[in-house]
Amino acid sequence: MNVETAWNHLREHTSELETIGAVSGLLGWDQQVNMPPKAGAFRGEQLAVLSKLIHTRRTSPKVGEWLDVLEGADLTELQAAGVRNLRRDYDRSTKLSEGLVERIARAESAGFEAWVKAKNTDDFATFEPHLATLVELTKERAAAISSDTPAYDVLLESFDPGTTTADLRVTFARLRTGLVELLDAIRDAEPLPAVTETFHAEGQLKLHTELLESLGYDLQGGRLDAAEHPFTIGLGPGDVRITTHIHPNDLLNGLGSTIHEAGHGMYEQGLPVDFVGTGVRSAASLGLHESQSRFWENFIGRSLPFFRWLEPRLRGHFPGTSVGANELYAGANRVVPGLIRVEADEVTYNLHIIVRFELELALMEGRLDPRDMPDAWNEKYKEYLGITPPSNAKGCLQDVHWASGAFGYFPSYTLGNLYASSLGVQLQRDLPSLWDGVGAGEFGPILSWLREKVHHKGHLMDAPEIVRAAVGERDSVEDLLTYLWGRHGAAYGVTRP
Amino acid sequence: MNVETAWNHLREHTSELETIGAVSGLLGWDQQVNMPPKAGAFRGEQLAVLSKLIHTRRTSPKVGEWLDVLEGADLTELQAAGVRNLRRDYDRSTKLSEGLVERIARAESAGFEAWVKAKNTDDFATFEPHLATLVELTKERAAAISSDTPAYDVLLESFDPGTTTADLRVTFARLRTGLVELLDAIRDAEPLPAVTETFHAEGQLKLHTELLESLGYDLQGGRLDAAEHPFTIGLGPGDVRITTHIHPNDLLNGLGSTIHEAGHGMYEQGLPVDFVGTGVRSAASLGLHESQSRFWENFIGRSLPFFRWLEPRLRGHFPGTSVGANELYAGANRVVPGLIRVEADEVTYNLHIIVRFELELALMEGRLDPRDMPDAWNEKYKEYLGITPPSNAKGCLQDVHWASGAFGYFPSYTLGNLYASSLGVQLQRDLPSLWDGVGAGEFGPILSWLREKVHHKGHLMDAPEIVRAAVGERDSVEDLLTYLWGRHGAAYGVTRP
Repeated sequence: MNVETAWNHLREHTSELETIGAVSGLLGWDQQVNMPPKAGAFRGEQLAVLSKLIHTRRTSPKVGEWLDVLEGADLTELQAAGVRNLRRDYDRSTKLSEGLVERIARAESAGFEAWVKAKNTDDFATFEPHLATLVELTKERAAAISSDTPAYDVLLESFDPGTTTADLRVTFARLRTGLVELLDAIRDAEPLPAVTETFHAEGQLKLHTELLESLGYDLQGGRLDAAEHPFTIGLGPGDVRITTHIHPNDLLNGLGSTIHEAGHGMYEQGLPVDFVGTGVRSAASLGLHESQSRFWENFIGRSLPFFRWLEPRLRGHFPGTSVGANELYAGANRVVPGLIRVEADEVTYNLHIIVRFELELALMEGRLDPRDMPDAWNEKYKEYLGITPPSNAKGCLQDVHWASGAFGYFPSYTLGNLYASSLGVQLQRDLPSLWDGVGAGEFGPILSWLREKVHHKGHLMDAPEIVRAAVGERDSVEDLLTYLWGRHGAAYGVTRP
Repeated sequence: MNVETAWNHLREHTSELETIGAVSGLLGWDQQVNMPPKAGAFRGEQLAVLSKLIHTRRTSPKVGEWLDVLEGADLTELQAAGVRNLRRDYDRSTKLSEGLVERIARAESAGFEAWVKAKNTDDFATFEPHLATLVELTKERAAAISSDTPAYDVLLESFDPGTTTADLRVTFARLRTGLVELLDAIRDAEPLPAVTETFHAEGQLKLHTELLESLGYDLQGGRLDAAEHPFTIGLGPGDVRITTHIHPNDLLNGLGSTIHEAGHGMYEQGLPVDFVGTGVRSAASLGLHESQSRFWENFIGRSLPFFRWLEPRLRGHFPGTSVGANELYAGANRVVPGLIRVEADEVTYNLHIIVRFELELALMEGRLDPRDMPDAWNEKYKEYLGITPPSNAKGCLQDVHWASGAFGYFPSYTLGNLYASSLGVQLQRDLPSLWDGVGAGEFGPILSWLREKVHHKGHLMDAPEIVRAAVGERDSVEDLLTYLWGRHGAAYGVTRP
């Protein structure tokens, strides 16, 4: 078989796989947004049938044959990237025996159930044996995929290919030190006031829709709905849907959700249609995806110019409000060390992640026994955030990730913040009128810049390369700390020593 | 292979086919309710991939082998019915050559496009050659399925198995005569007033939701959405969705849509879960499906007791309205011969259908040349309804059915009315307090009766047998005419000669 034939077959096959994946994605979206309560069981059947169809296609020996023909041949940049990505997928799905896949599926299902019970009853002992099993099976899976690579590196590859454990060890340790320093300074300063006024949901929804249109999220190729846990899903060209959760008593929370998901959504909307079926039409990594959501949510969406632009629009929907740009800015940049990751502010959020990274790495490297997790967790919270969880439910049992076998996932959140801060530095250089534009609601040039530097790349390169090509060689830890001191330090009136 | 093994294989296979069909159904629902405008092209891809998966499974030679083992064996009632239904499906999908299927698909696609253009420009000549081609291909398809059965009977089987052309010829001719007589009487009477007051959409939607809950449509296993053209879709157990279209200036129109679709929806919700995968878990026919929607929309939903129950609920949402039960009853039972089928009242609707039945039967039997369609159409409208279309756009070009190759579909609408009227007669006998119950909003006993007599049967028998089992040997033409004279004749103060 010649190279062209192999590529055409591979592309057609991948295209069909992407299409079935999109259908499965729609079922998932519907499940969270529209599905009647009684449809749950049959929806499970539908997802299982699609999952089987996807698995059969993903592991088809034909894919291996086409990749064999293509590897080493003279390929275009697009083809080479596609072959690299599809080879990773293929190896990751074919190197696991059916028996192991089944054992993992059972352990994850049992682990999830035990975790729900353990969290509800605040009883770590219920979850502990499951955690131990999940850790062992995760190591076994990593070894099956690559026996000569450390387990945590194998895990990272599925979420953030191109990032290594060695990178994270150094990066996260430096970041931790810097964050603790900033947090100490803020702790001694005068607290900032929260926004506590009530804003009715209908008005907030109209404001959000207006905001989406201004940011550049394309509502003709997407839509905004309400969901319990906000998420974004790319269902293919012309169909990228976002969700949000509006709280009448927490304006900034809902606003942050919508901008965050719009950031994810605009990334998906910016993936080139030409890449369909090539294995390149996807985000380069979870971390890079997160960089887009956090860039908009934090770098743009917590800035004073942004709130100055928003203020008259807020008053348009809520004429009697006493909340203006300054109150929004203060409220959005409050730093309050807390126990719960998903409620954390922008400064402490990364410390929550670093705790998890250090602990799950220790689990994988056999330096931490699952039964010692609660103590290890609580010590780190005391050391980094200065607080101790009163219960495991509010401590090491708070997140679903480990219970569903997702080890190696957490770092992507902080990688996103690191990428976003370096992109922000470069954007300010390339677009000197950035903040005047934000104040005037001119978000178009920002989106165009992100389109060119990030979105249009798809997965032609791994995320670290994409960011390097966009910003040059930069110290992203320094960029993030500089940004956080500039934003939150300034709001609190403290300066970096 | 023994009978049990064959049945188990067949059931598993059919179950998967139903599941993929449900997924395809969800894509269709989403397309009409939620899909962003730009997603159209990729949605087409998704539907095409699923359609291929469905076709491969439906025509799998294994199905033929299992059916061969089962046919003639000692089967339960459920198995026998399933084997009969699945054999019909199998034969209808395997007897067509790929070439013919492709030619039909192309002709339908071209026919649809030409029809849109012809209708917009009121130019029948644009559509005429396509109509001729579609008629010829439809005959060819019918002959491929069964060479020794008249074409129109083969067509009917796919919509209303168990009903023959010979039945319809007699039934529809008698009905036509009776309807023209009723229409003549009404034409000479004092016209009834329409309901013209404006009711805001939010209030109407709340009223509809309250109505659905009272009727017994299960909102935990379904939902109500807005759609341009209201429809119902059964997506499997626990997921039957209905749509409606609310018009602020036409309260009765939207109300009728919602009750109509609820009738379809309650039928789907009543199909037994136990029947999954047996080939029996579906409506017995389109006509029987339509009987359920029209039973609720017309027999119940245009009755005076129904409007007496509705009146205080309408006032609850619209306290200032001057519209009460009597105005609603008069408005809902107005008879005004018009040109457009989808806008027709309950009396003239069937005449619209009979025109179409007579003409499409003549096309299939070679008694009508497609080029003579406009004249033939206009003559029948003059004769039966007393009016002449001023244009073909408002005449023979108004419906999409023929343009998309759906010959033999129209009769099901009137079959629905016939079935519904006989069911209504029997229900009044079995439930003497029927109208007191309706006036009190007690719809439960009605739904229970329909569940037992119709819904729970699924497709164990063909529709005529199901109705016969429910009502005995009845003259449904006489039942429908008696009902229409009773309802509309009474409203107009005219009595049957």
